[in-house]
Amino acid sequence: MAQDNKKQVEQITDMEVDFTQWYTDVCTKAELIDYTSVKGMFIYRPYGYAIWENIQHELDKRFKATGHTNVAMPMLIPESLLQKEKDHVEGFAPECAWVTHGGSEKLEERLCVRPTSETVFCDHWSHIVHSWRDLPLLYNQWCSVLRWEKTSRPFLRHREFLWQEGHTLHATAEEAIAETEQMLEVYADVCENVLAMPVVRGLKTDKEKFAGAERTYTIECMMHDKKALQSGTSHFFGDGFAKAFGIAFADKNNQLTTPHETSWGASTRIIGGIIMTHGDNRGLVLPPRVAPIQVIVIPVAQHKEGVLEANRAVMDKLTAAGFRVKMDDSDKAPGWKFAEYEMKGVPLRLELGPKDMEKNQCVLVRRDSGEKVFVSLDGIEETVARMLDDIHDGLFQKAKKNLEENTFPAFSLAEAKAIQEEKGGFIKTMWCGGLECELKMKEEAGMTSRCIPLKQEHLGDTCAICGKPAQKMIYWGVAY
Amino acid sequence: MAQDNKKQVEQITDMEVDFTQWYTDVCTKAELIDYTSVKGMFIYRPYGYAIWENIQHELDKRFKATGHTNVAMPMLIPESLLQKEKDHVEGFAPECAWVTHGGSEKLEERLCVRPTSETVFCDHWSHIVHSWRDLPLLYNQWCSVLRWEKTSRPFLRHREFLWQEGHTLHATAEEAIAETEQMLEVYADVCENVLAMPVVRGLKTDKEKFAGAERTYTIECMMHDKKALQSGTSHFFGDGFAKAFGIAFADKNNQLTTPHETSWGASTRIIGGIIMTHGDNRGLVLPPRVAPIQVIVIPVAQHKEGVLEANRAVMDKLTAAGFRVKMDDSDKAPGWKFAEYEMKGVPLRLELGPKDMEKNQCVLVRRDSGEKVFVSLDGIEETVARMLDDIHDGLFQKAKKNLEENTFPAFSLAEAKAIQEEKGGFIKTMWCGGLECELKMKEEAGMTSRCIPLKQEHLGDTCAICGKPAQKMIYWGVAY
Repeated sequence: MAQDNKKQVEQITDMEVDFTQWYTDVCTKAELIDYTSVKGMFIYRPYGYAIWENIQHELDKRFKATGHTNVAMPMLIPESLLQKEKDHVEGFAPECAWVTHGGSEKLEERLCVRPTSETVFCDHWSHIVHSWRDLPLLYNQWCSVLRWEKTSRPFLRHREFLWQEGHTLHATAEEAIAETEQMLEVYADVCENVLAMPVVRGLKTDKEKFAGAERTYTIECMMHDKKALQSGTSHFFGDGFAKAFGIAFADKNNQLTTPHETSWGASTRIIGGIIMTHGDNRGLVLPPRVAPIQVIVIPVAQHKEGVLEANRAVMDKLTAAGFRVKMDDSDKAPGWKFAEYEMKGVPLRLELGPKDMEKNQCVLVRRDSGEKVFVSLDGIEETVARMLDDIHDGLFQKAKKNLEENTFPAFSLAEAKAIQEEKGGFIKTMWCGGLECELKMKEEAGMTSRCIPLKQEHLGDTCAICGKPAQKMIYWGVAY
Repeated sequence: MAQDNKKQVEQITDMEVDFTQWYTDVCTKAELIDYTSVKGMFIYRPYGYAIWENIQHELDKRFKATGHTNVAMPMLIPESLLQKEKDHVEGFAPECAWVTHGGSEKLEERLCVRPTSETVFCDHWSHIVHSWRDLPLLYNQWCSVLRWEKTSRPFLRHREFLWQEGHTLHATAEEAIAETEQMLEVYADVCENVLAMPVVRGLKTDKEKFAGAERTYTIECMMHDKKALQSGTSHFFGDGFAKAFGIAFADKNNQLTTPHETSWGASTRIIGGIIMTHGDNRGLVLPPRVAPIQVIVIPVAQHKEGVLEANRAVMDKLTAAGFRVKMDDSDKAPGWKFAEYEMKGVPLRLELGPKDMEKNQCVLVRRDSGEKVFVSLDGIEETVARMLDDIHDGLFQKAKKNLEENTFPAFSLAEAKAIQEEKGGFIKTMWCGGLECELKMKEEAGMTSRCIPLKQEHLGDTCAICGKPAQKMIYWGVAY
């Protein structure tokens, strides 16, 4: 058994040797995901889906607290509907999967499996919106969407992925912008305070913004390998979609007015972010607030009298206190169990055997640091609560340090390129705002613009790429 | 305003005059659903979706309490995978929607948008199941499925509908049958104790069972118009699928063994059932345990000093006690508000004005009976809890009476036909078990077999249709 255990651990590639392979190993060996016979389509296995359910719960309660309601729209979009907003269809049509037959009949018009649902929401709104009394509309939908991309990787790039898409309609541009910014804050809050992933808040450049949007806000996270992951976006559409779909309302003076729209989305890609932010060479390390199992209870010498009962009593006590707890009393060897739950990233392991029972204590082992402490069974709920909070804080601080220590200013394209090649990370420069400089950075240094941070710094007066007057400080990076 | 209010109420068709039109009126005027430009595809609007969320919550907690975990499988199924189980593909292929193109490329093999997911679960299991230690697998999935049917009606028949599909795999047939029966009980429990809809539990005949199943259990409900609604089904597959997909495990004696499978599903069609069981000529009547708003608070003379504050205080008190409460302090006339929330089927209306404030009381009006009572604001939480339970019990008893008073024995096909034509309802007869008699009942009396009830009665020794020796008592009816 001990040998098997060692073998299982050895099967993960060292993350410093081959980060990509390490990532895939974790996804499969922690039983988060499975491949299918259709390229780019994945199965979210129970443990992977349970993480998503916890993220959903955290997001959904914040959506509802800010006045949003859930709805369900059809998954199929007629081609003519998709074409109503010009920029939007240009962005998405190349990635659509098309339904052409229903039963044995060829359809008169082909239908796209939704890549995103702006067009469907707008079509519905054009029927139900009449008066200022009907606004704002604050909707959200939990669903899966399809984007027929060439390459795929677990969580990061699926042809089908799970997400939520919020869609809202407002009487004024100001209200719509406030909504867009509010929802970015919701994403940032969940990322930092639930997933322990520090974020950089910013605006996307025109080149990188969502197809059809006037503004796209983003939160960008830095992974362990110093690459960027876009972890949530929030779009302000102005009245472009509303005009294209003929949505109008009578305002308080009975004037026919065009409303303003937003949408915002976060997806299961964030699970890839969790893995790549916190994971280590023993596997997954889960932030405690979304871990499907927060405490794994492992009885020691479980055949001895009273041991199972004592372990069950602790489990029940912790469960009653609201923790997600599991006991593993299977006949596997303890070492095997240790390795399995380390691979699965369970934040705390609780061991309890006959000797501990005598002393009214148990052992708690932290997944993040490996630290092992003996603690009293009295007040175990408070001890566990404190340690889980400590683990969250520790993970956040470690990731924040990674982000801060790997964000570098640069003052020329050559310097930016050299830093990226040598160290990686985020490179911040001043920028003229021109598309040409953005394309040049991509071509010569292999970096895309990540965002124009909302918190600006003044690094100088001229664009690091072309030398013309600078408009903004911008972040560059290599992204997933 | 009073006129408008009256007009709104008048716009619903009388249910005794045209039940079908009454049903459609309720679905649209209570803002549960909207039509789209694609035939048979509907939008679940916020109020309709909120009912579904509450049903999901009730089902999901029971699924988890019985050891099941949620997963997400791909929505697209390769044609070759769908064809692996013969009976199954015959049942579903005529209703499949087919994806033939991804982006601009034609696919090598066309992909079906899932009509149900047995094939995808089996394909996955064939990769991950090896040993008896891997069993049982107790999975569930919340998703939408597509069935390209010719006709459609809100909630009852969509080309795309929301549902859950449970899929489980067991070492033995006995275990799988116990699971199938357990999940039927979960559905019956939610129907009766949450939705206030009494059920008849039974088995489907071979003709009516799920494509590929050995046994299909069902719960059948009776609607206000005495037609039947199949409200949840649970299937035992034996080892047919497992064999077709090559799923096998090493048992405790290291013998390669084929496992046994189940699946079970309930869908948003149950919302149609709620509407047709409890609704009346003023609109929807919602069972309190899934009502999105359980208590609507309507301030009386809300411009007078302190009225809004007093109403808000009651709302906060009830919300803190765990009820779903909304206050409508809009500038609409009270009569308009009354009609709106009656249409939406809110179980209790709470009115509170200056005179009530003086007496430390409020008015509670029941949606089901229209009964109006003055109650003290002290202990309002207990009063509301008791009244909501009373409403649930009253709705259940009324529906049970409808079911019992409209279930009739018959001893010949002619008698069964006459009863159905004259009175409608469920007709119970003895049956030989033959397909021919089932087809004859359909052809001559327009009724399908609803189920072979688990609670059998002995009505006689011979089949009511052919006169041969009877095997079972069976229920017939006209179904949605």
